[in-house]
Amino acid sequence: MDAKSLFSPEGVAVIGASRNPGKIGSIILKNLRITYRGRLFPVNTNASEIQSLRTYHRISDIKEQVDLAIIAIPAEGVLKVLKDCEKKKVRFAIVISAGFKESGESGTRLENEIKAFLRTSRIRVIGPNCLGVINTNPTYNATFIDPNSRPAEGKTAFISQSGALLSAIVDDATAEKIGFSKIVSIGNAIDIDEAEMLDILQRDDKTSVIALYLEGLSDGKKFIKNAQEVSKSKPIIILKGGTSKMGASAVTSHTGSLAGNNTSYELAFKRVGAIRVKNIDDLFNFMRDAPNMRVKSDEIIIVTNAGGAGVVATDALSAAGLRLAKMGNNITNELAKELPRGANINNPVDVLGDATPERYRSAIDIVAKLNKPIITLFSPQEVSMPIETAKEIYEVQLKNPGLPILPVFLGGTQVEKARRFLRDKNMPAYSYPHEAVDIIEGLYSYSTFSQPSFSVYNGVKYKAPAIRADKNLFGMAAKDLFDKMGIKTAPGVVFKTEQDMRKAASKIGYPCVLKIGSDKVVHKGEIGGVVVGIKTDEELKRAFDGVKSRAAENHVKPIDYELYKDVSRTDKTRIEILLGAHRDPQFGTMLGIGLGGEYAEILQEAFFMLVPMSDKDLADFKNSKVGRIVSTAVKRKVMDDLLGYAIKISKFMEANPKIKDLDINPLFIFDDDVVATDFKIFVE
Amino acid sequence: MDAKSLFSPEGVAVIGASRNPGKIGSIILKNLRITYRGRLFPVNTNASEIQSLRTYHRISDIKEQVDLAIIAIPAEGVLKVLKDCEKKKVRFAIVISAGFKESGESGTRLENEIKAFLRTSRIRVIGPNCLGVINTNPTYNATFIDPNSRPAEGKTAFISQSGALLSAIVDDATAEKIGFSKIVSIGNAIDIDEAEMLDILQRDDKTSVIALYLEGLSDGKKFIKNAQEVSKSKPIIILKGGTSKMGASAVTSHTGSLAGNNTSYELAFKRVGAIRVKNIDDLFNFMRDAPNMRVKSDEIIIVTNAGGAGVVATDALSAAGLRLAKMGNNITNELAKELPRGANINNPVDVLGDATPERYRSAIDIVAKLNKPIITLFSPQEVSMPIETAKEIYEVQLKNPGLPILPVFLGGTQVEKARRFLRDKNMPAYSYPHEAVDIIEGLYSYSTFSQPSFSVYNGVKYKAPAIRADKNLFGMAAKDLFDKMGIKTAPGVVFKTEQDMRKAASKIGYPCVLKIGSDKVVHKGEIGGVVVGIKTDEELKRAFDGVKSRAAENHVKPIDYELYKDVSRTDKTRIEILLGAHRDPQFGTMLGIGLGGEYAEILQEAFFMLVPMSDKDLADFKNSKVGRIVSTAVKRKVMDDLLGYAIKISKFMEANPKIKDLDINPLFIFDDDVVATDFKIFVE
Repeated sequence: MDAKSLFSPEGVAVIGASRNPGKIGSIILKNLRITYRGRLFPVNTNASEIQSLRTYHRISDIKEQVDLAIIAIPAEGVLKVLKDCEKKKVRFAIVISAGFKESGESGTRLENEIKAFLRTSRIRVIGPNCLGVINTNPTYNATFIDPNSRPAEGKTAFISQSGALLSAIVDDATAEKIGFSKIVSIGNAIDIDEAEMLDILQRDDKTSVIALYLEGLSDGKKFIKNAQEVSKSKPIIILKGGTSKMGASAVTSHTGSLAGNNTSYELAFKRVGAIRVKNIDDLFNFMRDAPNMRVKSDEIIIVTNAGGAGVVATDALSAAGLRLAKMGNNITNELAKELPRGANINNPVDVLGDATPERYRSAIDIVAKLNKPIITLFSPQEVSMPIETAKEIYEVQLKNPGLPILPVFLGGTQVEKARRFLRDKNMPAYSYPHEAVDIIEGLYSYSTFSQPSFSVYNGVKYKAPAIRADKNLFGMAAKDLFDKMGIKTAPGVVFKTEQDMRKAASKIGYPCVLKIGSDKVVHKGEIGGVVVGIKTDEELKRAFDGVKSRAAENHVKPIDYELYKDVSRTDKTRIEILLGAHRDPQFGTMLGIGLGGEYAEILQEAFFMLVPMSDKDLADFKNSKVGRIVSTAVKRKVMDDLLGYAIKISKFMEANPKIKDLDINPLFIFDDDVVATDFKIFVE
Repeated sequence: MDAKSLFSPEGVAVIGASRNPGKIGSIILKNLRITYRGRLFPVNTNASEIQSLRTYHRISDIKEQVDLAIIAIPAEGVLKVLKDCEKKKVRFAIVISAGFKESGESGTRLENEIKAFLRTSRIRVIGPNCLGVINTNPTYNATFIDPNSRPAEGKTAFISQSGALLSAIVDDATAEKIGFSKIVSIGNAIDIDEAEMLDILQRDDKTSVIALYLEGLSDGKKFIKNAQEVSKSKPIIILKGGTSKMGASAVTSHTGSLAGNNTSYELAFKRVGAIRVKNIDDLFNFMRDAPNMRVKSDEIIIVTNAGGAGVVATDALSAAGLRLAKMGNNITNELAKELPRGANINNPVDVLGDATPERYRSAIDIVAKLNKPIITLFSPQEVSMPIETAKEIYEVQLKNPGLPILPVFLGGTQVEKARRFLRDKNMPAYSYPHEAVDIIEGLYSYSTFSQPSFSVYNGVKYKAPAIRADKNLFGMAAKDLFDKMGIKTAPGVVFKTEQDMRKAASKIGYPCVLKIGSDKVVHKGEIGGVVVGIKTDEELKRAFDGVKSRAAENHVKPIDYELYKDVSRTDKTRIEILLGAHRDPQFGTMLGIGLGGEYAEILQEAFFMLVPMSDKDLADFKNSKVGRIVSTAVKRKVMDDLLGYAIKISKFMEANPKIKDLDINPLFIFDDDVVATDFKIFVE
């Protein structure tokens, strides 16, 4: 989409401009008057002049070109105004007005009417129920943020689903002099959503980093597609707020409940290479520093004037999965020459508490030769020259452009000016070691991200059966379907009478498992409807009588019974696996492979992949705990069988969009075989 | 110990006071001149006057009483000066001087000489290699911290093992006006260590919270004893830096490698009810706010003017294991009356973006009736009156003394004054929701801590065999010992010849396991020295030939062989458990119960307890993943058997201090039995 008229509009109308200085429409007009250099047209049905600007009664009264309209009138009037804007050939409207979906039924109706109109119109809309948009080059501030908050120009674009968080961050950013390229409050995203905004910002050459505050997504798959494209050239930083409520299916399916609320977002962010931050202060640091830094190594050098600070930083590195760089003899020899006796010439390099700025400088100069990220730690001590030290660090940075140097100045009054000095030079400067570590961790993960390939998944030529999927399937009905899918199941027979049971037993052979067949009982084990390890005719008879009487106790009327081969009763090495799929409302199917059997819910040990599974996903599974257990236990071929089943199930889920959940638990993995012994399919 | 002469000394001597203003001895004297109100005696062998004070050549020249000596002379002279101090009846010495254990061999020798002297002298020593001590009432600053850093009086005492971290925190605290009761740099802790300092501060009525920066401990058991005592009346906040290196035994024993570096400290902090913080900024917040707050409920109320901020705060609450309080109809009805339509009257209460300070006030007034912790969130928006809002919040706090109210003001310039206002009133004020949540989590865990009881452990009357423990024990030798301990093992026989093997087999019965018996091979499976599931004489013969030939291939000369009953080959429900003990150098024995078998190392699922195990430890084990698997799988009696074995092993470790590690893996748990089938004991 061409966003030129959004970000460099020729003519801006403020519809709902107000004479009352406290009103939103008045604040927006004021912000625009201060910041926008083009023609500004206040629109107000009753006024002819506001803030010394000629004011129009309606947008059609304006003769000049208007690219962008800011709408801040009551919700009821918005549709009418949008229609007027369409006639006037306005390209973009930012609808500030609240009172839509977020406020209940009648608001939802208004929102749907607007949606219907937008389907056939050319005008594009941001909002409603949003704070507005800020651009820094060319400048305009079309928000009702306090005019004292004025973000400078920078290379980070910020998209926020929360207006309040946005205004807090803009306020903080003004104080900290953090620059932005664009700031967009996305609101209800009736038309332009987060995914489309990513696409717009990907094409924006003023933006080199995109930060997002997300609570949910209107279209997960579009988000993945666009975000993947963005990640090729620009890091995406995400603070994810809230936990998505899962469908009712999660309660009944093992896979769904193992996946939890957070997994699908984790998988989506992993797939697109987005950096997920833990909290608002991390988001803040990334906004400031990510545009100026690329981290290509996970081996870090620490230079410190305080042993304790070095220890704390090393702990943080190790918790983040990063490593202390090995220094090599050349470097340590050089350090030994420059540093006094008692200094630690290994990593973390300790320049000692009495280190002068010059000593700091020479140590950093030496380790900079390794071309690896450097964290410098300064703690005010005997010789406390923070500013001078900061200046020396800055000199090293000038000599080594592109080298990530992350200075941490611990302390308050004595060092605040040093941090300020570095930030004014566009260098990072932190108060605590973990801040530097978080930045390195995020930017390193971005730099090692590669676009997913799907050769294994696509290499499996498999036409999954499409089924009617109008009800849940358990027991024999599910077994038949899995057989059809080409997934090996334990032999089984349905029967109704004791006489048929004997025939079934002679066909299947002992040991076997007897199950009650009523499809009204999902969890048959709970009412004593399952007997395993039956080895003789007598045991079978006893099991049958027991199941019947327990069914009666539980007021369950069995329609039929099922007899399966008990494949678990064997000397062969085996493990019990859970293999399942869960359809996430946002991102489509997730496939899970976990430790199975009756301890699945307790262990909560499962590995999830987004469907289609990338080659990396499959490789990562083999390195996961579950994957390592499978490969420790069984032969290589069986791992391939297991993954083959996983891919078949994924394709089955794609072919049958009405199926919400699918569970095989347990799936027995033997040294030479993979056999499903219990299976459930849920359509709702 | 009576610390009166340490904290309210009558007469302070500064030995090593210097005329050179850059020298440590000069800075200390300057700090003391500014802060100490008693008689100050500079001591310097060459000067008669320093900083306008009469100066003594040696301490014996002083006629007046001197309770405290600050020693800042080169390491070599410290012992002599301490002897002079002892003669002069000085009660305490703070030895600033570095150049001891931390600087190598000759320093260690000096340190040991001083230690020897202190064993028979009355003088007590803090340091050496420390930054000094600060007291705020009565005031004295006996450190070489920059005189511009002047901590105010407060109720938090801070003990630090890192001088640099201490000076950074004092600097920051000065800027933030955070008060302290005492600040102690513990240094090499040659005499008074962290544990003793805890004991001193426990008796100090000026101190209500103790914060610690720890890297290691000189005496873990003494620390536990004293910290437990402190926790009865004062919260202990700990930032733990560094990871303790484990002994070599960790490499060979499963239990040791599962425990990792961090577990023993975790267990110790849990036992004493200490609050462990994640990083320096958390430590800082606790130092400031813990003295003024007690949190007795984990049900939290959030009042916000921004939905997004409420979402982020709720996420943080849930990650910390806290809950949103249920409000009840009375409260929501009252809120509905006071708040405008569109406001959320449920928790998190959303007073909306246009909330006035009065609206905030009335919402908080209402929810305060529930007497549960309240987090208020303020984000600068349309009606942005942060200071006025802060004032209203403060009014509610005045009306409800003791109620934890934790205001969060998101943003920078616009809200900084609001935070400042509240802090000046001794109220907390944070920039980010997670800060408030961390404080609540920590103080709630402190308030629910109770002193451990040991009725179950002590109730097991068991005299553990004491053994010579001069070498590692594997195989049959270990089995004999476990039999003696009363821990059931699988039947087994040692044999040398094929003929004896047949006798062994007929005694034990099939199925059985054949193992090579050379005690030079710790991991017998790796060289093919173990064959399981042997069911017939023929299979046994084949297994025997196989083991012999593989031993030859691996250049292992078997001394003998072992034949065990293969208890795993059964239809009975069973799980494989790892039961082991690891002796931690700091805190003594840790007992671990984990998922066992060949997947133990992959799953890393284990529960650890400090020996002796408290009743709560044992209850917590039953609720752990491993405990829940055991109780799902087997009968109640077997859980008791398992814990009985655990206690026996703990008592065995206590009776045999030379044993470093003990592993049973796997321990088979059947529905009616617990049987150890592989066991190792390591003495080094």
